[in-house]
Amino acid sequence: MFQENNPALTSWLDVPENNDFPIQNLPFGIAKYEKGPLLSKRPGYQAVSIIGDNVIGLAVLHELDYFRDIQLPEGIFEKEYLNEFIDLGQPVWRAVRKRLSELLRKDNHELCNNKEALKRCLYNVHDVVLTLPVKIGDYTDFYSSREHATNVGSMFRDPKNALMPNWLHLPVAYHGRASSIFVSGANFHRPKGQMLLPGTTDKPVFGETKALDFELEMAFVIGKSTKPGESVSTHDARKHIFGFTLFNDWSARDIQRWEYVPLGPFLGKNFASTMSPWIVTLDALEPFITTAPKQEPDVLPYLRRPDSNGAFDINLEVWLQTTGKEETKICMSNFKYMYWTIDQQLSHHTINGCNINIGDLMASGTISGPTPDSYGSMLELTWNGSKPLILPGGLQRKFLEDGDKVIIRGYSQKDGLRIGFGEAKAIVLPAV
Amino acid sequence: MFQENNPALTSWLDVPENNDFPIQNLPFGIAKYEKGPLLSKRPGYQAVSIIGDNVIGLAVLHELDYFRDIQLPEGIFEKEYLNEFIDLGQPVWRAVRKRLSELLRKDNHELCNNKEALKRCLYNVHDVVLTLPVKIGDYTDFYSSREHATNVGSMFRDPKNALMPNWLHLPVAYHGRASSIFVSGANFHRPKGQMLLPGTTDKPVFGETKALDFELEMAFVIGKSTKPGESVSTHDARKHIFGFTLFNDWSARDIQRWEYVPLGPFLGKNFASTMSPWIVTLDALEPFITTAPKQEPDVLPYLRRPDSNGAFDINLEVWLQTTGKEETKICMSNFKYMYWTIDQQLSHHTINGCNINIGDLMASGTISGPTPDSYGSMLELTWNGSKPLILPGGLQRKFLEDGDKVIIRGYSQKDGLRIGFGEAKAIVLPAV
Repeated sequence: MFQENNPALTSWLDVPENNDFPIQNLPFGIAKYEKGPLLSKRPGYQAVSIIGDNVIGLAVLHELDYFRDIQLPEGIFEKEYLNEFIDLGQPVWRAVRKRLSELLRKDNHELCNNKEALKRCLYNVHDVVLTLPVKIGDYTDFYSSREHATNVGSMFRDPKNALMPNWLHLPVAYHGRASSIFVSGANFHRPKGQMLLPGTTDKPVFGETKALDFELEMAFVIGKSTKPGESVSTHDARKHIFGFTLFNDWSARDIQRWEYVPLGPFLGKNFASTMSPWIVTLDALEPFITTAPKQEPDVLPYLRRPDSNGAFDINLEVWLQTTGKEETKICMSNFKYMYWTIDQQLSHHTINGCNINIGDLMASGTISGPTPDSYGSMLELTWNGSKPLILPGGLQRKFLEDGDKVIIRGYSQKDGLRIGFGEAKAIVLPAV
Repeated sequence: MFQENNPALTSWLDVPENNDFPIQNLPFGIAKYEKGPLLSKRPGYQAVSIIGDNVIGLAVLHELDYFRDIQLPEGIFEKEYLNEFIDLGQPVWRAVRKRLSELLRKDNHELCNNKEALKRCLYNVHDVVLTLPVKIGDYTDFYSSREHATNVGSMFRDPKNALMPNWLHLPVAYHGRASSIFVSGANFHRPKGQMLLPGTTDKPVFGETKALDFELEMAFVIGKSTKPGESVSTHDARKHIFGFTLFNDWSARDIQRWEYVPLGPFLGKNFASTMSPWIVTLDALEPFITTAPKQEPDVLPYLRRPDSNGAFDINLEVWLQTTGKEETKICMSNFKYMYWTIDQQLSHHTINGCNINIGDLMASGTISGPTPDSYGSMLELTWNGSKPLILPGGLQRKFLEDGDKVIIRGYSQKDGLRIGFGEAKAIVLPAV
């Protein structure tokens, strides 16, 4: 176990109970400051971490020489994205997180007693604008929840043969659009496009989507590149992963249904995706690794898991807030339900020699659980609109309406330790 | 007409007959120099153009103040990619091409008589290493050749209903992998993956692809970004396009066939794509705009073409060279066969508000013509391996074998003017 993950650690900074960001988390993000200078320099970007409600400026700590024992280039924490920092390698990320943990510990006074430094490097989270933390070169979306694939197959094909023949043999995936991945809080307009009216099969109409949906997902960020022709084994996969975020793969079901055969989803999904601003490191999640679902039939050798512990126990929630109303929790799922593990996903992705780059994002696909309240999309929760969601006050929803805000939250919890992810949220704006 | 396109123009530099790069072309590319200094600076990259066999260093011309009447930032031609140059906008690309045309004209002596300058800015094309000219953020592959879609549908579904119901209503497309787009000359290893053995339906085996294919395509480079939520009309589409390259979307048909339902191609294609190093500007192709195929049924209003001239008359050829043998031409097609025009492709891509960025690549999909010798893939040329290609000397090919080199060439020709694209070529190396 990493000593930074010790549940007994506490900080001289206050962390409220059930906060997502105790001293054991210390995720990485990017803050933008326009009114500057947070640093003694021009406005720009700064790599940051967070503990409780306190955002910590890593560029300031670096400038003040608090990372003196780590080989860090000048200005490494003043980039628009974390990619160059990630490119320094796993030993460096680990050293920075370890050092942050040291500096924030109750019994450490190096930073705690330096009032001038604190004034410059600590900000209240509500005063900080968090931006997309990585430059995403390529974005891949998997389809790795058996429950989700079964639900979709049951609805649109045959409940008795809900899974396609390939589904149990490989982690199905497709390439998505990187340009339209936005950070939490970036709202987007309801998309327009071609769709069929009910009862028609080949005369599309043009209009606003009437079946706008969310997809509850998580995503991992690539931390180590590969060269063309190189493959990553399931055993080595985690060495290539920097960390995790929450992810919402917004979908327009009617547009998607008309366009997707035979080459897959395109305009039904590429208008917007939302990711949470904090990348929780794989290291911080180590205490929550757990048994992955058994796989039957056996997978091909290149997909065999290094051990039975390939899943991560991460509670996931979806909250819906309609205009002027309170938030309502509409889904409770868990990342551990995933049939295909991240090791298998990455191994499959590279088995043909496809090269991956630092900052690439690999999303899980919708994470549905076994019970109806754990379904990770409106499509499944309302069974394609046939059983509308009833919200407090009697409001109904088949799909999302303008003004609806969807918030994804996630956290791991065990033995008094809680590692959270914050939020991935956005509001559906009316069509342009 | 742009005066740079006048067929009567000639240069003081020699251009061999039927060369792809007369003074009327002047495409853009990037050269890498490791042994430097071509400039009086450190080794690195330089934006270049070409006339005949002479590569022209734009950074040197800029340094020597030959672009003095154009607003160009310092160092703009010394970047690894053309993106920042493209970001200066269409008036700037046009001004640079126009100025190059002036400097190279027979009656202009500004550069011609400056022996010191010539020594520094002119290189023989065989001495220059050309690299990927743009940083590709997102790569989209369309499926816009009716003949190709009909051939594929006839082979794998029903010849009487070869086209899917959506095909005549929208330009079908999918997102591909940007990281594995390589410049011409970058060879790649035969991919491995899951596939079904003939006669089986659900017991995949693992191995090297036995159905490696090329796809004859062209691709356009985005020259002007859009914001999320913004759409580009068919009328404005070309303002967002910088230029064209040749493109080969290598495909492993057996891997693709097993994986692609329901989310589209993934490992069957993302191991490698090849693009030609020169981006021929849309302006240089203006004389070759021609009538696009009639569309029946009528398309939805947002897809209506601004006029009937939406196609480009570009001859396309595929040459195959097996180990130790001569090149053989195995396909002759034309870009004008495309059912969906580039204006329609871009308008469709953005109709849902999907944002596009400078450097994004939009490929056409396989460009097949009406006759069997114009089919743009081995799949079609050999009708899924059932009619092997017979090469000179009696060699046969169902799909590509190790050591095979595929070369795509393309050029427009009319009234004594020829605008060519050079080559997109690569050799299939044995599996890793």
